[in-house]
Amino acid sequence: MKKLIDVASGRVKADIVIKNATVADVFGGRFVKGDVAVCGDRIAGVGKYDGNIEIDGTGKFVAPSFYDTHLHFESVMIRPSEYLRTVIPTGVTAFNADPHEIANVAGEKGIRFMIEDAKGVPADVRFMMPSCVPSAAEDRSGCVINAADAVAIAKKEKLFGLGEMMNFPGVINCDDDVMKKLEAFDIIDGHAPSVSGEPLNAYICGGILTDHECETAEEAADKVSRGMYVMLREGSQTKNLRTLIKAVNKSNLRRFLFCTDDRNVEDLFELGTIGNNIRLAVECGMSPIDALTIASLNAFEAYGSKNRGAIAPGYYADFIVCDNDCGQHPEKVFYHGKLVAENGKALFDTKPAKPDALFGSVRIKPIKESDLYFEYTDGMPIMRVFPNTVVTALTEAKSRDGLDMMCCIERHGASGAIGHCYVEGFGLKGGAVAQTVGHDAHNITVLGDNARDMKAAVDALGKDGGLALVKDGELIGKLPLEIGGLMTAAPAEDALATRKKLLAALSTMDYNKDIEPFMLLSFLTLIVIPEVKLNHKGLFNVSKWDYVYKK
Amino acid sequence: MKKLIDVASGRVKADIVIKNATVADVFGGRFVKGDVAVCGDRIAGVGKYDGNIEIDGTGKFVAPSFYDTHLHFESVMIRPSEYLRTVIPTGVTAFNADPHEIANVAGEKGIRFMIEDAKGVPADVRFMMPSCVPSAAEDRSGCVINAADAVAIAKKEKLFGLGEMMNFPGVINCDDDVMKKLEAFDIIDGHAPSVSGEPLNAYICGGILTDHECETAEEAADKVSRGMYVMLREGSQTKNLRTLIKAVNKSNLRRFLFCTDDRNVEDLFELGTIGNNIRLAVECGMSPIDALTIASLNAFEAYGSKNRGAIAPGYYADFIVCDNDCGQHPEKVFYHGKLVAENGKALFDTKPAKPDALFGSVRIKPIKESDLYFEYTDGMPIMRVFPNTVVTALTEAKSRDGLDMMCCIERHGASGAIGHCYVEGFGLKGGAVAQTVGHDAHNITVLGDNARDMKAAVDALGKDGGLALVKDGELIGKLPLEIGGLMTAAPAEDALATRKKLLAALSTMDYNKDIEPFMLLSFLTLIVIPEVKLNHKGLFNVSKWDYVYKK
Repeated sequence: MKKLIDVASGRVKADIVIKNATVADVFGGRFVKGDVAVCGDRIAGVGKYDGNIEIDGTGKFVAPSFYDTHLHFESVMIRPSEYLRTVIPTGVTAFNADPHEIANVAGEKGIRFMIEDAKGVPADVRFMMPSCVPSAAEDRSGCVINAADAVAIAKKEKLFGLGEMMNFPGVINCDDDVMKKLEAFDIIDGHAPSVSGEPLNAYICGGILTDHECETAEEAADKVSRGMYVMLREGSQTKNLRTLIKAVNKSNLRRFLFCTDDRNVEDLFELGTIGNNIRLAVECGMSPIDALTIASLNAFEAYGSKNRGAIAPGYYADFIVCDNDCGQHPEKVFYHGKLVAENGKALFDTKPAKPDALFGSVRIKPIKESDLYFEYTDGMPIMRVFPNTVVTALTEAKSRDGLDMMCCIERHGASGAIGHCYVEGFGLKGGAVAQTVGHDAHNITVLGDNARDMKAAVDALGKDGGLALVKDGELIGKLPLEIGGLMTAAPAEDALATRKKLLAALSTMDYNKDIEPFMLLSFLTLIVIPEVKLNHKGLFNVSKWDYVYKK
Repeated sequence: MKKLIDVASGRVKADIVIKNATVADVFGGRFVKGDVAVCGDRIAGVGKYDGNIEIDGTGKFVAPSFYDTHLHFESVMIRPSEYLRTVIPTGVTAFNADPHEIANVAGEKGIRFMIEDAKGVPADVRFMMPSCVPSAAEDRSGCVINAADAVAIAKKEKLFGLGEMMNFPGVINCDDDVMKKLEAFDIIDGHAPSVSGEPLNAYICGGILTDHECETAEEAADKVSRGMYVMLREGSQTKNLRTLIKAVNKSNLRRFLFCTDDRNVEDLFELGTIGNNIRLAVECGMSPIDALTIASLNAFEAYGSKNRGAIAPGYYADFIVCDNDCGQHPEKVFYHGKLVAENGKALFDTKPAKPDALFGSVRIKPIKESDLYFEYTDGMPIMRVFPNTVVTALTEAKSRDGLDMMCCIERHGASGAIGHCYVEGFGLKGGAVAQTVGHDAHNITVLGDNARDMKAAVDALGKDGGLALVKDGELIGKLPLEIGGLMTAAPAEDALATRKKLLAALSTMDYNKDIEPFMLLSFLTLIVIPEVKLNHKGLFNVSKWDYVYKK
């Protein structure tokens, strides 16, 4: 502290000074002019300062770096350190990461991998304890984590809080195991789509701090009024920002946060993450300083982190330097006083992915073509899918034409369990797609118009898993996801290239082009989303909570 | 938690419901309609609720109760519990109290008395560790508390943080003992009048969270931009609110707080405390909901207290019910779900003041008239005082006419030390005033136009101390302050009555009526305020840090 005060007072030269900059003042809602002095990992102040390293800030903006308050690294299909190497250069240096997917595959081992992989990366990476593993007892994921386990893991791994509590009925109805989880954590993220009124009060009484599932501006404003922090989420599939930002005004601004939740690797490279939220917010008419405040100070305040999220004396020196007032394309990114990225490139390396027990996570009984085949009959219950939503409809088959077959193959315990159903609306012809990504249990999902190609696609996944595409009996594309069947061990750039090749191969196939097949497929097994989903046992009616078709 | 969720969900009746009320929504910056449900010490939510006790809220407003973020109970000259009994009915239920004055008289014993006295009162009374005892080493107070002592006391007494760090040069210059204090506390209140620029950065780097000494709106806005919470103080003498509120806008509102610092007992009864800040803020054009937000949510946020300061699910049920939207004259005050005041009257009693070691705190050598007398000579250095400020001027005596004699008598260790000086501008004739309240060392200050009356006034203070007024050799008024010579053991109402009598007696005397003698006298010994002050050694030039006259 003495050295910091010496520097702040001007008696001692700063380590680094950004001279003559325009500085985002997130406390005052304005920009101020001055030299930003850095001492060690802290900001000494904005004023007139000399430094051992001086960077000309003339015409440049200095702003606190950003906080993505809710995301799943797994969605990007690259490992945490590769994600961070890609995203930190865009100005994000704090992350609340919920390793919910890998925990569903590999439990504590999976969580530990994520933590270890991110270790040493210059950023505040705050891992949450996944709250719902599995998301429903009816599912067969790779792991079951009850309250006692969750508390023990969180303590051992020093987790930041409890991840999105998706089991909102469990909270509202005081389920025992849920109560035990809630009582054990100070910080609890929420997930309460369309919950309102007295049930919402009950949910919040469970100690839930945030929500990222608002669908309307009214819902967002109401949740804020009841004391929640509301996240303006902009993911690759779920894009809520433009709608929800209508709820934000100068009085309630401090209760809003930015997050991405789920992002794919193309968007990661093309749009970035929180910088994209800021850009959209400003496009919607928000002032740049308000958007920057949501991206920084608000988030640290929400999670009770002192001395973070502002360019102010004693605050951690986590900031960006850029040529615009919206934090776009930062020229420099500093974390804890160190330059960690410049002109879009990280100045640090990632460690190689450890070939550990998360490789070879696909454990299935050998599959025969006949295992995947099942009879079609007129009037049988089938699943209808739609573009731009993961909500499905239960319907009756009228004709075999244009239907695809889908199977969900249990892949954690080699039980041999397989669920089957016909799907309308996908329109895939002359091939099959298979993948080990299937929320939340992440069993194998395979869809195609014939059992031979379906088997070939499953076979192509191998022991490590990933995404596979078969056309007329031939494997035409694959993205290996060796880590738990969810993430690639390859560098982010390679993952992007491989995925682009896969999408190019996909484009040669015949299917409903309004659909993004890999994404949609990954949600057709999520039995907590209506109206009908497929798990390893059969076709499941979500609202009736029962099976409507088994082979 | 289970019962709270049961109530919030509507499955179980609430303990208390305020039906059909208009509720201050400090998160949304608006008022909302609904029933406020209370379960135990918490709010279950705002919605449609039934309760075992139902209170009709039709046409009424419900708002979170208020937080006075910085005050000294001693200034009111009544003990903490009596203060709280008087103020809680006005809607204030949280207090950051700095027992700085009693600590200067009696050290840890004094602090412990304050804590014990407030114990059991239904309010969040958060005691701070006084940071500067004495405020200057040159002074002779009743106690010296160094960093090690401060840390030990704070730990033992579970103090909330470090009280206003008045020694700002000590922070900026990294004095050893000051550094040790700063490093030991997470929460540190500030006191940095007119400090700005790089020195202010240095001060804030010491971990200082707040400031209540801004003199201009520009200073307030600047301090906010540098990360401080700025208190809009409205005391009995120092009234900053109307000036500083010009700095508040919708962007920086969240960084402002309300406090009273020093209040006298008449104001306590006539104006209250934080309710008065709210009233003035609204008079200045602030919206009622913004003023209520400053009074509640902002303050709890500043000090990192979760689940306090709002009417929201899971929040502590600390709130008021009143017939106006500005929190004036609450009909009911609830603390932690219990009705603790109604129609201006507390529903709890205070314990009797314990006649403990803080009584009989006046320890002086017997005083002779000649001890108080000292020669006048033309051209000698004297003190000039002015109305409405505690700042004085050093000047040269031109004539004995109209001057008063002032003495400062060391009263903690019976050392016999007495400082003397002549005072211009007070104009007291035919009498003397003496008191044991004299910031910050609280020695005896006596002022009069003749030594005989001065001695009589000092004698009248007795072993317990207080304020005494002598006219033509006769004691015409006295307010006994048995507790450390600073606070009365009497009930608040009696203190008010006695003080009113004293002021009535004072009004019969001949003095400069633009001056409030007791208040002014209490600051003429404070050697950290310019330009010249009197302590037990002599007349002290503050800027030169040396004595200019000794008898």
